[in-house]
Amino acid sequence: MNPASESLTDTLAQIKAGQADAHGFLDRCYDRIEARESRLGAWQHLRPRAECHDWLRANAGWLSGTPLKGLPVAVKDIIDTADMPTTLGSHLHAGRRPADDAACVAALRAAGALILGKTVTTEFAYFTPGKTANPRDLRRTPGGSSSGSAAAVADGMVPVALGSQTAASVIRPAAYCGAVGYVATRGMMSLRGIQPLAQSLDSLGMIAASCADVRLVAGLLAGPDAVQSEPLASLADSRFLLVSGRTVGDVSNEMEAAAGHVADRLASAGAVVEQLDCGDRLMRLVELHKTIMAYEAARNMAAEAGHPDEIGPAFAELVASGRAIAFRDYLAARSEVAGHAAWLAARMDGYAGLIAPAAPGSAPMGLAATGSPHMSRPWQMLGLPAVTWPAQADADGLPLGVQLIGARWSDATVLEFAGRLALLE
Amino acid sequence: MNPASESLTDTLAQIKAGQADAHGFLDRCYDRIEARESRLGAWQHLRPRAECHDWLRANAGWLSGTPLKGLPVAVKDIIDTADMPTTLGSHLHAGRRPADDAACVAALRAAGALILGKTVTTEFAYFTPGKTANPRDLRRTPGGSSSGSAAAVADGMVPVALGSQTAASVIRPAAYCGAVGYVATRGMMSLRGIQPLAQSLDSLGMIAASCADVRLVAGLLAGPDAVQSEPLASLADSRFLLVSGRTVGDVSNEMEAAAGHVADRLASAGAVVEQLDCGDRLMRLVELHKTIMAYEAARNMAAEAGHPDEIGPAFAELVASGRAIAFRDYLAARSEVAGHAAWLAARMDGYAGLIAPAAPGSAPMGLAATGSPHMSRPWQMLGLPAVTWPAQADADGLPLGVQLIGARWSDATVLEFAGRLALLE
Repeated sequence: MNPASESLTDTLAQIKAGQADAHGFLDRCYDRIEARESRLGAWQHLRPRAECHDWLRANAGWLSGTPLKGLPVAVKDIIDTADMPTTLGSHLHAGRRPADDAACVAALRAAGALILGKTVTTEFAYFTPGKTANPRDLRRTPGGSSSGSAAAVADGMVPVALGSQTAASVIRPAAYCGAVGYVATRGMMSLRGIQPLAQSLDSLGMIAASCADVRLVAGLLAGPDAVQSEPLASLADSRFLLVSGRTVGDVSNEMEAAAGHVADRLASAGAVVEQLDCGDRLMRLVELHKTIMAYEAARNMAAEAGHPDEIGPAFAELVASGRAIAFRDYLAARSEVAGHAAWLAARMDGYAGLIAPAAPGSAPMGLAATGSPHMSRPWQMLGLPAVTWPAQADADGLPLGVQLIGARWSDATVLEFAGRLALLE
Repeated sequence: MNPASESLTDTLAQIKAGQADAHGFLDRCYDRIEARESRLGAWQHLRPRAECHDWLRANAGWLSGTPLKGLPVAVKDIIDTADMPTTLGSHLHAGRRPADDAACVAALRAAGALILGKTVTTEFAYFTPGKTANPRDLRRTPGGSSSGSAAAVADGMVPVALGSQTAASVIRPAAYCGAVGYVATRGMMSLRGIQPLAQSLDSLGMIAASCADVRLVAGLLAGPDAVQSEPLASLADSRFLLVSGRTVGDVSNEMEAAAGHVADRLASAGAVVEQLDCGDRLMRLVELHKTIMAYEAARNMAAEAGHPDEIGPAFAELVASGRAIAFRDYLAARSEVAGHAAWLAARMDGYAGLIAPAAPGSAPMGLAATGSPHMSRPWQMLGLPAVTWPAQADADGLPLGVQLIGARWSDATVLEFAGRLALLE
C-alpha cells in the first residue's frame, strides 16, 4: 500500500534523465489538489499555480544546480513561513504572518524546494481537529496533529510535507493515511521558527512518499552525514526487539498482527527478533509523557489560554491540567523518565531497533477526534527517532502502520533499515 | 557595590505602603535614561514616556491587582515583542516585527509589567558588540550578549531586564556591569519566541538590582513553586565547593581573590567550603561547549549566514567552524559531556552549590569586544542554574562578580543562598 504521489527521488532521477521537469510535476500535484482538496481539506494555504510556475521560470538557472530542482514540498502550519500565513490551527492566530522562515523552511528553500503551501494542523498541534479528512476513507480521521501533511502526501498532492511531533503527531497521521512518517531524534534538527508545545518533547519530522525521500530531505535539514550511516549489517545479521502494543495500551488485533508480520518477515530473512519484556515501563512512560507535556504546554501557551472563548476544550483542559501540576511532581516525572531511558538504552544496545505498532489500529471513523497518541508517547518521551510505513492493510483495506524505533541519534540506521523493511512486504 | 536602581521588591513594598507609585518610579527611570543613554547606549528601542504614562493610567484599575503593578521591565532584543521591533542586533533584521510576544514577555505583561523597551544585544547574541558601554566606566565593555540589559540595570535605568545565555551572555555582563545576574536551569522556562542560537545551550535569564527581584520575576515566569524551596539549612549547616578559575582558564588574581573572599566569609559563618578538584574536566567542558555551540548555531542560523556581507566576522567564523564539524564529532562531544555531567552531579551531591568567578576579571578596556565567556562555558554546557552578584571591587573600583552555581533544577536553592551570600559582604 503506497502513497499516491511519485517520490521526490524518483522524480529527480527522471529529471536527470530528461524524462520529467518541475513544471510537469507541479501540474500533476495541482491537478490532484484541484480534484480532491474540496473533499480532503489538507491545505490551510496554497500558493497559486501560476505563481509557482512563474517562480520556477524566474529561478530556472539557479534551481538546475540545487538538490531539489524546484520540486514542491509542503509545510505544517505551525512552522513559520515569511511569505505565507502561519496560523497554528487557531482562530486566535488567523492571518498571523511570521517575520521569518523557520530554519527548516529556509534550509529547504536554499536546497531548491518550492514551498507549495501550508498544511492543516490541529489547534496548536494538540487534539482539536482541523478540516482534514483521511484520503483512504473520507469519513475517517487523518490523525493529528500533522493532519494535512499526512493527507496531502498520502493523496498524491505533494511528495513530502514537514510535520512536527510532541506526542504522536507525525507517526500516527502517517500510519492512518498510509504514508511514510519520520520523527528525528529530539534535538537533532533546528526547531527555530516552529511554534513550541513542550520543549522536552517537540521534534521535527516529515511525511513522505518513501523512505528514500525522507532520507533526502532529512539530509538537507540535518546535514548529509547525520543520515548516512557506516555500511550496515544485512538484515540477516541484525537484531530487533518486537514491542507488543498491549504493553503500551489498547491496540487492535489486526495491528498487533501487522507488527508481528513484520517480525516474521525479518526472522524469515535471518534476523534475530526478540520480544521486548519491560513490565509496565511503557505504560508508565505514557503517563509521564502526559504529565510533562501538560506542564510545559501550560507555560508555553499561557497567552493563548488567556482567551478561553477562542480555544478548543481539549486545549483548555491540557493547559488547566498542566497548571495543576506542582513543580516537584514535574521534576519527579523527569527523574523517573531518566531511569526508564537508561534502562531502555541498555536493553537496545546491540539491536538495530524496536518494531512496534505505529497506532492503536487503522484510522477510526469520524472527524471529530484524531485517535489516541499512546503508541508513540513512550518513544517520544525518550526523544527516539522513529519511522513508520504502511506495512499492511486491514480487513477494510485501510493502512496499518508499523514503526521502527531506534536509539537516540541513530537516525541513519533507522532510516536505512526502515527502507529495507518497507521493501520486505 | 550595588546597582543604582531601586529594586522592584522595595518599590512594590513602598507602593503597598502608599509611599510610591508606578508613575513616579517610571519618571525616575526615564530621567536616568535621558541623562545617560546618549553615552551608555543600552537601548535598542524605547517606548515613549508619555505613552507609558498613558498606558499606566488606562490600566490603573487592573494593574492595582497585579503582582508588578505597572513597574517597568526591559527585554533583550533577541526576545520577541509584538508591539516593538526585535532586531537580534543584526542589520539583516532591522525593523523586524514579530507576530507574537515571546512567552516570557507575555507572562510578564500578564503580571502587570510595563515593557519599557528593548535592550541592546550583540549580533545574534554572539560576539560582535552593539553600541553599549559599561556604566561603571564608559571606556570598558559591558560584556555580552545581554549588554544593554546589564548596562541599563546597573545604571539604574530599569530594575530588571530579561536576557538569555548560550555561553556567558547573562553572567558575564552582569559581572562586568555590577548587577545581579541569573541563568535558569536549561529547560525550566519557556523559550518560545526567543531567537535560538544553540538548542542544547540556550537558557533564559535576567539581570536585576537584587536577588529578591530575580526571585520575584523568575517566579512569574516559571511558577512560584519552581523558585520557592523547602526551608533551607542555615549557611552554617551548608556545604559549598570552591572552583579555582585557573581550572577553567585565564583568570585575574583579583578575581580569584574575590571568589576566595566569598569562601572565607562562608567559612567564617560556619559553612564547610572545599576546593573542587576535577582535573582537566572544566577545561574540556569549555572546548566541548565551543564544539556544540558552533555545530548547532551553524544549523540554526544558516539563513543569516547566507548573507556574508551583512554579518560580522565573528559570527561568520562561528558558522563556518560549525559547518566544518562532522556529525560523529558532534555526537562524541555530546557523549563526553554526559560523562562529565554525571561526574559533577555526583560530586555536588550534598552541597548547596559551587562558588566560582563569574568572569576572568573586571570589565576589560575597549568596546570592540565583550570579553571572554570561558568562566561560564562549563556550567552552561551542563545546563546548571547560576546567580552572580558584585562581590567585591577591584583596585580601580570596578565590580568583580562571583557566581553560585547549583545542581540542575535547584534554582530555588541557588536563589536563596545567593541572596544570603550577597548580604554577607
